[in-house]
Amino acid sequence: MNYNDAIGLFAKTLRNIEQWMEKATAYAIAKSFEVDVLAQARLAPDQFAFARQVQSACDQAKYTAAYLGEKQAPSHPDTEQTFAELRQRIEKCLAFLDTVQAKDLAGAEERKVSPPWLGGKWLRGDDYLVHVAIPNFFFHATMAYAILRHNGVDLGKMDYIGAIPVKDG
Amino acid sequence: MNYNDAIGLFAKTLRNIEQWMEKATAYAIAKSFEVDVLAQARLAPDQFAFARQVQSACDQAKYTAAYLGEKQAPSHPDTEQTFAELRQRIEKCLAFLDTVQAKDLAGAEERKVSPPWLGGKWLRGDDYLVHVAIPNFFFHATMAYAILRHNGVDLGKMDYIGAIPVKDG
Repeated sequence: MNYNDAIGLFAKTLRNIEQWMEKATAYAIAKSFEVDVLAQARLAPDQFAFARQVQSACDQAKYTAAYLGEKQAPSHPDTEQTFAELRQRIEKCLAFLDTVQAKDLAGAEERKVSPPWLGGKWLRGDDYLVHVAIPNFFFHATMAYAILRHNGVDLGKMDYIGAIPVKDG
Repeated sequence: MNYNDAIGLFAKTLRNIEQWMEKATAYAIAKSFEVDVLAQARLAPDQFAFARQVQSACDQAKYTAAYLGEKQAPSHPDTEQTFAELRQRIEKCLAFLDTVQAKDLAGAEERKVSPPWLGGKWLRGDDYLVHVAIPNFFFHATMAYAILRHNGVDLGKMDYIGAIPVKDG
């Protein structure tokens, strides 16, 4: 898997999250409740709510693209409260991911990645992708899915996975 | 990220799951309940229970190693009911992952991967890793974590992520 594939996988999954939100909205209409209630739903009282899970998934994708592609990450304050705002947040993230090209990611495996939370220490680019970006991104995406699923939204594994480039013959 | 790193990430995360089960066992003792109750816990009535999430995470890792490393996957029937049995299942999976070496994975990106559920169609090895193995593996691992977290087990993000190869200076 190259670095461009990893960013592409994050982008695909963020688009899948938009589809889950679409299904959640249809469910809210059918059940006559306000869909934005789900933005504050969570699985444990001391866990991030749905909105924060989506914001975190976006940030994992954004910072991976920025660190590995040597781009400045745009600032996206975590102010979203509604499903409409969260979808805009995803769209802003996708627009940034689009600016990071395969050529920007050349040599990413050996890049020094030093996010603020490492307090001056660093990770190799390949270690950042494997040990931080991939597990964290899918943690937040799956938690967002789990919160909707726990609240009755009709999601299945193919909603989570999305399209697969299957070949014939 | 090379294919060996991907298998290594799955192995590391399976070992992390064993640590979550350790914490769940301590919590069950402190609260005077039978820990194996959690093996049947789930977040929605039509979703896999904890035991099946662990079995599925193991299988995603096992089949990735088998398909990409061109090895025969050992049969592991989903018979586990208890935490002790689930830990044995993880150990059996880890033992198999250990048999797949970096040299077995050379050229994995172009290998034709044709799991039974594709009904004769196939995926390139790189597409299998990106579109199937990584998202599915972390789906089941995160769901296992979410089920324990929802039931009150004191887990945090570092339990999920495990050790990170941080460098100094």
